[in-house]
Amino acid sequence: MKMIDLNCDMGEAFGNYTMPNDDLLMDYISSANIACGFHAGDPAVMQQTVALAIKKGVAIGAHPGLPDLQGFGRREMKVSASEAYQLTLYQIGALSAFVKAAGGKLNHVKAHGALYNMAAKDAALAKAIVQAVYDFDPGLILYALAGSKMISEAKEKGITTASEVFADRSYQDDGTLTPRTASNALIGNEADAVNQVLGFALKQEVTSTNGNLISVVAETVCLHGDGAHAVAFAKLISERLKKEGISITAPKR
Amino acid sequence: MKMIDLNCDMGEAFGNYTMPNDDLLMDYISSANIACGFHAGDPAVMQQTVALAIKKGVAIGAHPGLPDLQGFGRREMKVSASEAYQLTLYQIGALSAFVKAAGGKLNHVKAHGALYNMAAKDAALAKAIVQAVYDFDPGLILYALAGSKMISEAKEKGITTASEVFADRSYQDDGTLTPRTASNALIGNEADAVNQVLGFALKQEVTSTNGNLISVVAETVCLHGDGAHAVAFAKLISERLKKEGISITAPKR
Amino acid sequence: MKMIDLNCDMGEAFGNYTMPNDDLLMDYISSANIACGFHAGDPAVMQQTVALAIKKGVAIGAHPGLPDLQGFGRREMKVSASEAYQLTLYQIGALSAFVKAAGGKLNHVKAHGALYNMAAKDAALAKAIVQAVYDFDPGLILYALAGSKMISEAKEKGITTASEVFADRSYQDDGTLTPRTASNALIGNEADAVNQVLGFALKQEVTSTNGNLISVVAETVCLHGDGAHAVAFAKLISERLKKEGISITAPKR
Amino acid sequence: MKMIDLNCDMGEAFGNYTMPNDDLLMDYISSANIACGFHAGDPAVMQQTVALAIKKGVAIGAHPGLPDLQGFGRREMKVSASEAYQLTLYQIGALSAFVKAAGGKLNHVKAHGALYNMAAKDAALAKAIVQAVYDFDPGLILYALAGSKMISEAKEKGITTASEVFADRSYQDDGTLTPRTASNALIGNEADAVNQVLGFALKQEVTSTNGNLISVVAETVCLHGDGAHAVAFAKLISERLKKEGISITAPKR
Repeated sequence: MKMIDLNCDMGEAFGNYTMPNDDLLMDYISSANIACGFHAGDPAVMQQTVALAIKKGVAIGAHPGLPDLQGFGRREMKVSASEAYQLTLYQIGALSAFVKAAGGKLNHVKAHGALYNMAAKDAALAKAIVQAVYDFDPGLILYALAGSKMISEAKEKGITTASEVFADRSYQDDGTLTPRTASNALIGNEADAVNQVLGFALKQEVTSTNGNLISVVAETVCLHGDGAHAVAFAKLISERLKKEGISITAPKR
Repeated sequence: MKMIDLNCDMGEAFGNYTMPNDDLLMDYISSANIACGFHAGDPAVMQQTVALAIKKGVAIGAHPGLPDLQGFGRREMKVSASEAYQLTLYQIGALSAFVKAAGGKLNHVKAHGALYNMAAKDAALAKAIVQAVYDFDPGLILYALAGSKMISEAKEKGITTASEVFADRSYQDDGTLTPRTASNALIGNEADAVNQVLGFALKQEVTSTNGNLISVVAETVCLHGDGAHAVAFAKLISERLKKEGISITAPKR
Repeated sequence: MKMIDLNCDMGEAFGNYTMPNDDLLMDYISSANIACGFHAGDPAVMQQTVALAIKKGVAIGAHPGLPDLQGFGRREMKVSASEAYQLTLYQIGALSAFVKAAGGKLNHVKAHGALYNMAAKDAALAKAIVQAVYDFDPGLILYALAGSKMISEAKEKGITTASEVFADRSYQDDGTLTPRTASNALIGNEADAVNQVLGFALKQEVTSTNGNLISVVAETVCLHGDGAHAVAFAKLISERLKKEGISITAPKR
Repeated sequence: MKMIDLNCDMGEAFGNYTMPNDDLLMDYISSANIACGFHAGDPAVMQQTVALAIKKGVAIGAHPGLPDLQGFGRREMKVSASEAYQLTLYQIGALSAFVKAAGGKLNHVKAHGALYNMAAKDAALAKAIVQAVYDFDPGLILYALAGSKMISEAKEKGITTASEVFADRSYQDDGTLTPRTASNALIGNEADAVNQVLGFALKQEVTSTNGNLISVVAETVCLHGDGAHAVAFAKLISERLKKEGISITAPKR
């Protein structure tokens, strides 16, 4: 049976600021990447989000980010490889405590925002993050951009990986994402996005912006959790995948 | 053979701000309570301090505090029991990740500053902190003020405790610390402080401010790590204890 | 002509977390208390909110809070009088820079949350906050709880005050607010809240929870800006006040 | 009479973490750049440092940095021009409140660390920072790296500038600083550093690492305030300058 993972960043509320979609999105996804307090999330949000994921049977991942709450972890910071190692390890540990206390099991790690993007291209950062994952628990799965340094460094270290693709981002002929600066970077049409996800799941293929069929490694699909249509879109994707006989399942450690 | 534990708060540097005594103090203590990033400490400091403790054979504890770096965790904040649970669990998890990565073992937990003092008197806070320790690992030892709610709640939960006494604080006839507002709260004289520690270790006794001999449960002695004389004093205490045939040993889980 | 001020806490977004009501509420209020980055708000939000208030002709106040973003400034912290002075002065200065840069004029100061409540009862804190306002600009108006220490300390210092009352909080026979712990602390019914505001504006009176008419000094009415009905309620209040011939006007320095 | 300014970053303590040199250094410098709470400093430290500068007759500048206390503002962050404007304006405002309350006058602004370095090369950031200074008070003086974008943007805006040179950094033939990655970036020898400062003050010249005499615009010399020898070195420089008949004087607005 065909299967694919749908992952979504969760627990990105903070203090008085809520993220009302989390509860509803958990019904449609198989993996939750839970913020760990640096770019978003706080101890209360982490506890609640872990409990929610366990209740809904969604696989739990740590979602460490740069220490920049104002910038939501999206502003690049020149952190050294040591600092990347340390902040990743810290955040995995913090989240795993809530998972442990709730009787759950930590399944994976996915870096957030600028940390994710920087480490996709920078081998030293990628190696540092992979090492932090490995040192905490070599059985954890690393979710990272398909084709990135993160994937290659994790493989070299012997860590299981899940190559990530995006439902609402377009792809170029070389299999990489169209840069966000380009006007056609985002797929605005829901039907197109659904078809792209089906292509990932059924054929490990995507149609590039030039109209060519491109092979991609697509093990987990990132859905965006914010925005007014996020829940409706997750529901739609989920229903279409099931209709096609594709199981929505997290990679299991 | 008589034995007592000497504990000291460690890893309370932050970023550019160093705590130069840590390295030297580790030679004289048996337990290090390592700050976890809320009142002091950061991921880099935590990694270094854990490594130092392992190298010196000192038992490692998590030292969670209130989220108040400017106030060094010493300003009371009205946190709810849930919040106390969450911030304790978060910080234990974060520190334990560094311990795990370094191949060490987390031995104990000691709350910091205002959190320590508030929970000593407030049963609901004490219960919440004890629950966080228990949920993370019921084998951890809780270091807390001798005679406090923290000790009684931990015992009720079945957690091993270490009752803490102070080398440089005076005691009243009822066995409690002289409030810091009193002029004789602190023992300024080194010889008196050394004698007080010997009394704790040899006879589980202390001479009160009224000159009476009082029984105390003294399982771990807190040494202060800051100040110009901290290292010299730790050395002095350590030497005197050894000379009296008292082993400086952490309570082991 | 009768007049009353309607004030609302504004600019309490932070980074990625928005407060969508601000824009709409500005049409109905006369005073905006703008968060200054400690309990909420950030430099970007402050700039935008100041620009919005100027555009809408709403009087601008600094809204300093405790340094506790996770707790939204609502958790009491034991800050000293010096610390209260310093954090108030810092935040007034920061906000005033945006007002100055935008060509506006800072009109007032209103403390936030736990700082507001603590200083209402604690003369030393009240004096410290008043001193900070005075030292920055003795012409600023202090908005504070009617009948509080803040009002009396400000009057003693010669600072103009605006006594604050609440649209949706009930009052006791002695003119103080019903504690939030009581079941009848909040006025859930919109019509009752509107009538209470009319009573404030027309007669400086309020009906207590025991049904007695009580005199209050009511110079500015606090509207809450969060919640789904906040905008509709502000609109309703605004329309009713105008219908009764009451001008909605900020106290001018 | 020849004159030159000696400036030093001050008020970079935070909470429990002290910077013991500040008090002593104030005797030898003419300009203090006071941290504003983002990369270092807090409201208490700012109040104390402003009071100290006023007492010692030292010109006061705001020293805004990136919001990165752990990195001490030294890690580059990709902030937009708007964000640079906002964080600069916020911090100038906050510091100026303490200056105003203490009866002093704000003299200048100098950006800190990574913000200083990024804006030296990036015209958009430089323009944003200059605009923030201008919008707050067009009479303020901007201290910035000699020959940088900051200087040229400020001049274009009509803001008075002070071109900064370094006592302990070596210079290349083109008048720019030797990159820190080079082994000869720092001048370790005190006598050489003193001679370099004399060259700046007497002849607006410096000897490059290749041994050539280079012209530089040297209006303010940066002394480093940390390190064990900082006070002794400041004293030495100060004495030598006076001996040569050079007045140590801040550029006055």
